[in-house]
Amino acid sequence: MTNKNKRTDDTRPIGPFDPHQSPPPSFAERVPAFLDGSETPRELLEGCLERIDALEPSIAAFVHLDVNAARAEADASTARYAANRPLSPIDGCPVAVKDIIETADMPTQMNSPIFDQWQSGRDAASVFALRHGGAVIPGKTVTTEFATGVSGPTHNPYDLSRTPGGSSSGSAAATAAAMVPVALGTQTAGSIVRPAAYCGVYGYKPTHAALNIGGIHPLSLSHDTLGTLAGNMADAWITAHYIASIVGGTPPHPGLDGPSSLPDARKPETLVRLCTEGWREVDGSVRQEFETTLDRIAASGVRILDRGNTPAVADLESLLEDVDNIARTVSVYERRWPFADYAKRHPGKLGETAQERLDTAMAMTRDEFLDALARQTEIRAQVDAIADIADGFVTLTAAGPAPVGLESTGNRSFQIFWTLTAAPCITLPRLAVDGMPVGLQVLGFRDRDADMMAVARWIDALCIA
Amino acid sequence: MTNKNKRTDDTRPIGPFDPHQSPPPSFAERVPAFLDGSETPRELLEGCLERIDALEPSIAAFVHLDVNAARAEADASTARYAANRPLSPIDGCPVAVKDIIETADMPTQMNSPIFDQWQSGRDAASVFALRHGGAVIPGKTVTTEFATGVSGPTHNPYDLSRTPGGSSSGSAAATAAAMVPVALGTQTAGSIVRPAAYCGVYGYKPTHAALNIGGIHPLSLSHDTLGTLAGNMADAWITAHYIASIVGGTPPHPGLDGPSSLPDARKPETLVRLCTEGWREVDGSVRQEFETTLDRIAASGVRILDRGNTPAVADLESLLEDVDNIARTVSVYERRWPFADYAKRHPGKLGETAQERLDTAMAMTRDEFLDALARQTEIRAQVDAIADIADGFVTLTAAGPAPVGLESTGNRSFQIFWTLTAAPCITLPRLAVDGMPVGLQVLGFRDRDADMMAVARWIDALCIA
Repeated sequence: MTNKNKRTDDTRPIGPFDPHQSPPPSFAERVPAFLDGSETPRELLEGCLERIDALEPSIAAFVHLDVNAARAEADASTARYAANRPLSPIDGCPVAVKDIIETADMPTQMNSPIFDQWQSGRDAASVFALRHGGAVIPGKTVTTEFATGVSGPTHNPYDLSRTPGGSSSGSAAATAAAMVPVALGTQTAGSIVRPAAYCGVYGYKPTHAALNIGGIHPLSLSHDTLGTLAGNMADAWITAHYIASIVGGTPPHPGLDGPSSLPDARKPETLVRLCTEGWREVDGSVRQEFETTLDRIAASGVRILDRGNTPAVADLESLLEDVDNIARTVSVYERRWPFADYAKRHPGKLGETAQERLDTAMAMTRDEFLDALARQTEIRAQVDAIADIADGFVTLTAAGPAPVGLESTGNRSFQIFWTLTAAPCITLPRLAVDGMPVGLQVLGFRDRDADMMAVARWIDALCIA
Repeated sequence: MTNKNKRTDDTRPIGPFDPHQSPPPSFAERVPAFLDGSETPRELLEGCLERIDALEPSIAAFVHLDVNAARAEADASTARYAANRPLSPIDGCPVAVKDIIETADMPTQMNSPIFDQWQSGRDAASVFALRHGGAVIPGKTVTTEFATGVSGPTHNPYDLSRTPGGSSSGSAAATAAAMVPVALGTQTAGSIVRPAAYCGVYGYKPTHAALNIGGIHPLSLSHDTLGTLAGNMADAWITAHYIASIVGGTPPHPGLDGPSSLPDARKPETLVRLCTEGWREVDGSVRQEFETTLDRIAASGVRILDRGNTPAVADLESLLEDVDNIARTVSVYERRWPFADYAKRHPGKLGETAQERLDTAMAMTRDEFLDALARQTEIRAQVDAIADIADGFVTLTAAGPAPVGLESTGNRSFQIFWTLTAAPCITLPRLAVDGMPVGLQVLGFRDRDADMMAVARWIDALCIA
C-alpha cells in the first residue's frame, strides 16, 4: 500500500505504486462534510499545502505558487459552505493550472524566456469558469516550453530519476503527489494522458474543443485540447464538466454533454483491443500486465474485437500506421503562427526543437497540409464506423513506465492517434511494473464523452477489485 | 466624376460618389513601375500620407499612426524592388489594420478603456503575414468597442454627418479616402461589408476561418471572420490570398483556395435574387437603383432565380426570417468569455451595450445555444442545396446609404445572414443615391471564394460600363 503522507526514501518520495489501491476520496465526497461543518475547504487546502511544503522541493511541480491568495479563496469558500450557499460542485476545490493557461493574478510563462514573468491581465476561459465556481487556485504547474519543446524541472514523484512525462508535467506530478486533487492540462499530441500514466493518476482528454481553450497559448488548434488530471476519476470529470457548463466549448463546438456528476459505471458489451505500432516497444512484463487485465475484462463477458476477428479494426489500425506523419504535418504547419513571429522578434529564444519544427513548418507546402488533413478525415470516418459495433477501445497509454531521465518526456506513439481522431480518451492508473505506474487507456467516440466515462469507470472498478 | 485630391466642401471631403467610376489602379498594376524604377513604394506611401494629412483631421479613420516606421518599411521595399527582389505580390503595399488585431509595434486598444495603450508584444497571424510579404503598415484603424459596442469617432468621408458604418469603421473610411489602398477588417455580424458599402469601397468577407484569425480579439468565434476592404477589388483579393498563403486559415480550416491574382471575370449562368426581411426598410430610390442593375444583369442573359420561380430560394428565405435571433443567440452565448472576465475585473469599463449582451449571455441556457446552432446548420444546408442550381446571389449590402449620425453604425439586417452561413460575400460600390454610395452585395458558397470573386468581377465591370 502506498502511504502518501511519508517520503519512503530520498529518490522515491511516494509509492511504490499499487494499481489496485482505491483512489483517494473525491472532492464531491467531501462536500457533505463541508456543508455540515465537520471539514472545511480551508482545511482541505492546508492539507494540500503541507504536501506541497514537504514534496515540492524534490518534485518541482509548480512554477508559481500563491499561498496567500489560495488561503483567502479557501476561506471565502468555507464561509459559503457555512452559509449553505456553495457556488458550484467545485466550490473550494483546489485546482492547479498548467502554465500555458492565462491567469490574471499569476504570471503565465509557457516555460519560455519570451514569456518571462508575462502577465496576461485576464483569466483564460477555463480559469474564469473555475473562479466563477469558487475553486481555489494555488498555483501554476510546470509545462514544457509552449507545451512542446524544452522540458521543465519536474521529477516523477514515484522515482525522482524519471520523467513525469509532458507537456503537462507539473499537473501530473502535483496530482500524483496529492498536492492538489485536480489540475488542468492540455494535449496536442500526448500531453495529458502520457504524464498522467507516468505519474499514476487519471488523465482525461475530452473530445477536441469540448472545453473552451480561450486564453490558452496555441500550438496546433486542430489538436490542442484542454482536459483534467486527477487522483480520482470523479474530480477529473466534474471539473471538466463544470468548466464547459460555464464557458462552453471552443466555438463553434457546442461543449461537453453528459451529467454534472461522474456517469454511472456501465459494463460494455464490446470493446476493441487497439494494437498500434507503438506495441513493438512494449516489453514482456508490461504486455503481461495488460493481457491479464484484458483477460479479466473478457472473463466478465465483454466481447473483445481485434484486427484478427474484425476487418473494421484491421482497417483502422492500417490507417493508423502513418498517424505520426499525419499528426506531425498538421500540427507543425499550424504552428507557423505565432512561432514564426516569436522567432523573428526574439532571436535565439526558442528552444532547439521548437525552432526546428518551425523551420519545417515554414518549408512545408499547403498541399502537404491539405493531404494530411484529408488523411485525418479518413481516419476519423473509420473510427466513426466502429462506433456502430463497439462501445470503445482499450490499449496502453504508453509503452511502459516513465523512462529514466528528465530531458525527454517520453514517446507519444500511444497517445497521438487519439488526439488526431478528436475523440475522447482517459488513462486509468491501473497497471504497474516494479512499483511504477503504467497507464491503461480507454478510448471513446467523438462527442460521447459521458459514454466513455461510464465504460472507463466500470473497467477501473474491475481493476481495483 | 469624383476628384479624390480635393475636398469638395467642409462636410463632404470626398465625392459626390459616382458608382460608374472605374476604381483607382490596383497595387498589382503599380508593380511594373516599381520594378522599372519609374515609381517607388515610398512615393506611393507619401501619396497616402498626404491624403492622411489632409483628410484625417475631419475623418478620424486612425486611432494610431506610425509614419516613421511606415517610411522605413517603404524604403526597405523600394530597395527590394530596385534589386529586383520583392518579397511578395504585396511588397510595399500600404495596409491599415483594424485596432482589434494585434500589432507588436503599435498598441492594440479595441476601442476599450480596458485595453488603453495595450501592447500585445506580437503581431497577429495576418499582420505577421503582411510584414512577411513586405507590406507597409502605417497605422491602426478605428473600431467600435471590441468590434461590437460603443462607436468610434470616425466620420463617413462622403458626408461627415453620417456614420462610416462599423465595426470596421476606420478601415472603410481610410480606404474610401485613399489614405491606404487596402485595410484589414473583421465581420461577426456585418462589420466588413456594411462599412465598406457606406463608404463606397469593396469589402470582402471570406469564407469563415479561411483567413487565420490568430491574434484578433475574439467576439464570437463561430462567426468572427477576417477580411479586406479596398478601393480596388484586386487589392482586396490579393491581400487576403497572400495572408492565407503564409499563415493559412484558422485551424482546422485549410485556408483560402484560388489563384494568387484576382480571378478572371466570369459571367454567371444563374443568380439568385435574395430578398430578406431587411428589404421592408428599403426606400423607392434605392430599390430603383438595385432593380436597374438587376435588369442589366438579366439583359446580359443571366437567369435570375427568386422565391417566385424557385422553391429552394423560397425555403431559404423562409429559414432566414429568424436569422437575427439565431445569430444573436450564437454570438451572444460565445462572448461569455472573455467579456465576463473583463466585466468582473474592470467594473463599469464595458460599454452599456456590451454589458447588456454579456448579461444576456450569462442568463442564456446551453439548450438555447444548441437550438440556435441546429438552426444555423439547417440554413447552411439549404444554402449548399442552392449551390447545385445557381452561381451565387445578389442583394443589397444595406437598406440604403449611411444613416446620418455617428452613434449608431447602422442596421445589420442585410449582412448578418451571410455571416451565419459562413459563406463568402463581397460588397461592390456600384450603386448610389444622392451622391452617397450604396452597396451591391454578391454572395457565394462556402470554400468557393474564387468562384464568387469571378462572378463579382463580372458584375462589377457590367455596372461600370
